[in-house]
Amino acid sequence: MAPNDPFQGWVACDSSAAEGNMQWRAYTPKSFQETDVELDIEMCGVCGSDIHTLRSGWGPSDYPLVVGHEIIGKVSRVGKDVKDLKVGDRVGVGAQSECCEACKPCKMEQESNCAAMVMTYNGKHQNGDKSFGGYAKSWRGPASFAIPIPDGLPSEFAAPLMCGGVTVYNPLVTYGAGPGKRVGVVGVGGLGHFAILFAKALGCSEVVAISRSSSKKADALELGADRFIATGEDENWPSTNASSLDLIISTVSGSFPLDQYLSLLDVNGTFVQLGAPDDPLPSFSPLALILKNLRIAGSLIGTRKQIADMLKLAKETNLKAWVQVRPMEEANQVLRDFEKGLPRYRYVLKNGDFGAEEP
Amino acid sequence: MAPNDPFQGWVACDSSAAEGNMQWRAYTPKSFQETDVELDIEMCGVCGSDIHTLRSGWGPSDYPLVVGHEIIGKVSRVGKDVKDLKVGDRVGVGAQSECCEACKPCKMEQESNCAAMVMTYNGKHQNGDKSFGGYAKSWRGPASFAIPIPDGLPSEFAAPLMCGGVTVYNPLVTYGAGPGKRVGVVGVGGLGHFAILFAKALGCSEVVAISRSSSKKADALELGADRFIATGEDENWPSTNASSLDLIISTVSGSFPLDQYLSLLDVNGTFVQLGAPDDPLPSFSPLALILKNLRIAGSLIGTRKQIADMLKLAKETNLKAWVQVRPMEEANQVLRDFEKGLPRYRYVLKNGDFGAEEP
Repeated sequence: MAPNDPFQGWVACDSSAAEGNMQWRAYTPKSFQETDVELDIEMCGVCGSDIHTLRSGWGPSDYPLVVGHEIIGKVSRVGKDVKDLKVGDRVGVGAQSECCEACKPCKMEQESNCAAMVMTYNGKHQNGDKSFGGYAKSWRGPASFAIPIPDGLPSEFAAPLMCGGVTVYNPLVTYGAGPGKRVGVVGVGGLGHFAILFAKALGCSEVVAISRSSSKKADALELGADRFIATGEDENWPSTNASSLDLIISTVSGSFPLDQYLSLLDVNGTFVQLGAPDDPLPSFSPLALILKNLRIAGSLIGTRKQIADMLKLAKETNLKAWVQVRPMEEANQVLRDFEKGLPRYRYVLKNGDFGAEEP
Repeated sequence: MAPNDPFQGWVACDSSAAEGNMQWRAYTPKSFQETDVELDIEMCGVCGSDIHTLRSGWGPSDYPLVVGHEIIGKVSRVGKDVKDLKVGDRVGVGAQSECCEACKPCKMEQESNCAAMVMTYNGKHQNGDKSFGGYAKSWRGPASFAIPIPDGLPSEFAAPLMCGGVTVYNPLVTYGAGPGKRVGVVGVGGLGHFAILFAKALGCSEVVAISRSSSKKADALELGADRFIATGEDENWPSTNASSLDLIISTVSGSFPLDQYLSLLDVNGTFVQLGAPDDPLPSFSPLALILKNLRIAGSLIGTRKQIADMLKLAKETNLKAWVQVRPMEEANQVLRDFEKGLPRYRYVLKNGDFGAEEP
């Protein structure tokens, strides 16, 4: 590929793309800057945010767009000002690919809260160009957000960590998950499955999966959960499990029973709401917060340092995300399968000719 | 007074007491144990909780009862097992006067979250006796909750610190109030006035008072607030003050604009709800929590260590609560004045013959 050729990828032209109507075609990536790298994409995880953005779920998306922010690829081009990467390095790119590096959060190495953060797709880079994601052959963007993947960590496991993994890893480490801590995970889906895996990898004393039905109980226990609470199948679950947890990671949204979840927390406990749900949190009594000194917090993706730490932990603990690798060509079908709730628990798109020689 | 005489105090027989219908009469205090002290009460602050309990606002109160949990008095009797206090010591008793000393919070010196906490009135001591408060001539209870008052700190300033003061001091120190921090205080009343005073005493960089109207603006500024936001008089207050605070102490309840208060917090900020409001917190969007890594927390009174630290700080910084000292005899009228919102900002009841010789 010549340096200024357009890229090839799954382009969404309108919100129907969310139903499996993306089109494989050429698009013009951001213009190359000397602080950028270019990647040959090996794999890209499929994240709920992809579909939500495709359908303009967080407000009108900036079509045409290419989604995908769990990208693993090999560096194929390096800008002159890039110090830490070289052609051939295997790197990952997550949900954020640029920040201002100047604001208070950025200076605190907390760039995932940068007010001027650039999302990896459906965003605008500082140079004014649109950002494009990883359902594609190639990616181009700031080298500073391309994180080296440790040798020995397979790409299919690394890919979904770049967004889904760090989204749970961040609040787990921020709120003290580790030995002696009891962690509840609400919702056993893509994020929930990572929360169980990482809570165990971090050495938490007890990990409790919480879901409406027991349909995913076997999976949760196999993932490492010590206990499972099916809130729809035992009306006494709040009293039976009262004050039994130190941290709850909520991966659900809508009208969930927040008061009852809070009652599961022991003194000084924290309830963390993940993701960016469309619905407000339900009204709740502050009494639990007050009497037990609890906290309700939110969390958004994670920082580059957290991503690097998480990848290291994943390698050291041999953490295996439950992934199904699907051909990049099947991306539209994969979206339809995702919407049916079929993934157990993350789909990863793979470019079939990755590593093949240029014709 | 002989050791087993009944006590004299303002006894509430039913919920009409809240309207200024307490009766001065004899009552039987808890039986004396060798771990107890007895106090001649010099002063007792008037706290909103007193009236709420008098009217059975948190569920049916256990009449007859004597309220008051901002007690300053001199030790008049000391149990054999009491090591740290002697007759004549000036001490204070706050809202809690016993704990289990065995549970997790107690072992962490966080006994204000003890699940078996004994409130200073309307509670039951571990020996089964009822607890009685400080609208009275005398108090009897566990010595371990009688905190020495530093010499030089006047009793009328010390009294309202025992509950009102530590209720704001606790979340201020827990959530990092100090140099470099910008603190907002919602509500300029008894608690709010303390929050302003202590935020300044702790060296916060900016203290912002937030109230519906500007009727208390002059007071807030005189108390030490650097700025005042009147939310009912400037519809642009959320945008004008967006992301300008690190910590918000909310002393109000009901249907306040939580989403908008959260918008005032900068990244990593904390919103703390105080007291035990009857109303649930309003529904709110988790987006602010997520995008700016915010926390919502609650807080309840404070620990003995925090009370001691606070009293030391109050003395060192010459912190003067705005109190109006009223004769203990006028307690019923004081309740009526309190309910009219007249205190600026705490009433303190004083026993007129305190220190007089026994007849």
